Amino acid sequence: MKTTIQSFIPPVRTLMGPGPSDVHPRISAAMARPTIGHLDPKFVAMMDEVKQLLQYAFQTENALTIPVSAPGSAGMETCFVNLVEPGDKVIVCKNGVFGGRMQENVERAGGSAVMVEDDWGEPVDPEKLEQALTEHPDARLVAFVHAETSTGALSDAERLCALARQHDCLTIVDAVTSLGGVPVYVDEWGIDAIYSGTQKCLSCTPGLSPVSFSERAVQKIKSRKHKVQSWFLDLNLVMGYWGSGAKRAYHHTAPVNALYALHEALVILQEEGLENAWARHKQNHLALRDGLAALGISFLVREEARLPQLNAVLVPEGVDELAVRQRLLQEYDLEIGAGLGDLAGKIWRIGLMGYASSAKNVAYCLSALRALLN
Amino acid sequence: MKTTIQSFIPPVRTLMGPGPSDVHPRISAAMARPTIGHLDPKFVAMMDEVKQLLQYAFQTENALTIPVSAPGSAGMETCFVNLVEPGDKVIVCKNGVFGGRMQENVERAGGSAVMVEDDWGEPVDPEKLEQALTEHPDARLVAFVHAETSTGALSDAERLCALARQHDCLTIVDAVTSLGGVPVYVDEWGIDAIYSGTQKCLSCTPGLSPVSFSERAVQKIKSRKHKVQSWFLDLNLVMGYWGSGAKRAYHHTAPVNALYALHEALVILQEEGLENAWARHKQNHLALRDGLAALGISFLVREEARLPQLNAVLVPEGVDELAVRQRLLQEYDLEIGAGLGDLAGKIWRIGLMGYASSAKNVAYCLSALRALLN
Repeated sequence: MKTTIQSFIPPVRTLMGPGPSDVHPRISAAMARPTIGHLDPKFVAMMDEVKQLLQYAFQTENALTIPVSAPGSAGMETCFVNLVEPGDKVIVCKNGVFGGRMQENVERAGGSAVMVEDDWGEPVDPEKLEQALTEHPDARLVAFVHAETSTGALSDAERLCALARQHDCLTIVDAVTSLGGVPVYVDEWGIDAIYSGTQKCLSCTPGLSPVSFSERAVQKIKSRKHKVQSWFLDLNLVMGYWGSGAKRAYHHTAPVNALYALHEALVILQEEGLENAWARHKQNHLALRDGLAALGISFLVREEARLPQLNAVLVPEGVDELAVRQRLLQEYDLEIGAGLGDLAGKIWRIGLMGYASSAKNVAYCLSALRALLN
Repeated sequence: MKTTIQSFIPPVRTLMGPGPSDVHPRISAAMARPTIGHLDPKFVAMMDEVKQLLQYAFQTENALTIPVSAPGSAGMETCFVNLVEPGDKVIVCKNGVFGGRMQENVERAGGSAVMVEDDWGEPVDPEKLEQALTEHPDARLVAFVHAETSTGALSDAERLCALARQHDCLTIVDAVTSLGGVPVYVDEWGIDAIYSGTQKCLSCTPGLSPVSFSERAVQKIKSRKHKVQSWFLDLNLVMGYWGSGAKRAYHHTAPVNALYALHEALVILQEEGLENAWARHKQNHLALRDGLAALGISFLVREEARLPQLNAVLVPEGVDELAVRQRLLQEYDLEIGAGLGDLAGKIWRIGLMGYASSAKNVAYCLSALRALLN
């Protein structure tokens, strides 16, 4: 059974898909630093910094603001398995792939999901949510995706959260693609639970999921009648490791080097400043939009709901979308994303996320598309 | 809320605790290589190599042999939530911390756990397991820890699995600390589900959990009556991404760089050869044992059940165990582990795992202890 496999040397790509995005070289370097113990006092001090930096990124003072030791899907599951108890009714807004995944999470946690559906490419309609809240006064939670990675649509998180709160519901918000790319104000908007990913607008390697929980959410978690079904994701246990104070209870072995990388990504974000990062994402999006227009390529999403960091564009008629993506990868080492579900074959998803949101990448992508489409 | 936190530069430690262990420099370098997409054909080809290399490490031909995208605790949970259905009776052998965690996993998955207890520091007693199997003919599964990280005791996995099979039970085996350090023969021993961690005898960074499932286990997973409670860990979905064939279904974003690191760790293991790695762990353990004996330090575990990679030793009478550990860390940059639970304050756990299992580390640890204890 002995094999003779060699070390893997990856190609150098330009990552302009739906994530992972280009990783900042400072972050790659941080990841390769010497591993230390997950209970080492120096590591524990770094964990405290990660929490502070995440509070800044999320614009929150929530004490329970930490990275889950697994990718964004596990961050989503952390929110649902901790906040949904068997029998809870949850209103789930669905306008793309990830709303559907939320429904799965609700049901697997023993809750029932009331679906509020919008067309793929549209933002969540607040009026539909309001109607559902009125029709289901026993709903306990509202869940929606802030930035739908599958369609490139941005929803009005502030308004959706305000509606939920008027009806005494907690909110779970998917900010996987929004954090760092467009404004996210956890405290100001009254978000109760939010999760994100490291590999989008934070320009970090994939593998961790930053989350934050309001005091109301923490109270609900602490007063659950049933144990959280996941041991690994049970925040009552995770808080013992990530909590404040010098004494940290061992829960699981933290992914030490991945946390070095996230720390560095957040330091870079802090240096640039959130507002500057948002402005940069906007500016590069506009440049890409203008360049695509010159190539006759238009957007799936109407202008006011477009995500600057994820550009879902219609494949021009008569163009073999797969062939173009393959040639971009093979001839230009440039990755862009395909459509998912009903949008497969119809759209491309061009990411301009984090470090990948640069004038250089915009120019490179436009020049490659120009060459291949003409 | 703006902070002014600087890049984190960790100290260079020698890691001789219960994990993480010293990371091989080739692995750190691999981790810093350029990130590529998780559906990139080059990445998919690398995934296939990781599977082959894991098959070698586990000594199995199981097709479902993959790394879970999260630490060992999530690997444990993957085994339990996929194999335990509500109402299933599971015999759990407990001789340390991790057997207790298995019980938690069984109960949270809706099963009932029959506990077979042994003293901490003892291996699992096959006769007690046999008795439990006889008394509970309706048991569906047997779970035990091969190498108890909390006590340094090695159990006879081959015999325990044979007993389970005689009673028509599937087996779940914790090999977090054993894989790569002592013989593990998944196929020959008839193990149905096994999980490990990257940060022990594979010398890799923490964050992933290699798992392997037999055909019998896969059949049970595919024929479940209830959906797996975890979406993230549902192998019916994960198999779509890690399965064979060119077409990989998107499930979650794989931790790309962590997988580069695991790939390199497994290439190194393959180059050395499993048998040589086991012999090296044994040899360095014996050298440490002799050196400790000269210092008057004895082992918690009797000789025939000692793990060479995790040496649980009794703190000499009159010695302040915490003070010694702190001085080792501060003055020698050397991490060794403390006792857990009832063993807190009574033992040290000295790891000689993977790359950290070297004559250099043995000599350094002995010389530091000699200086501090005299």
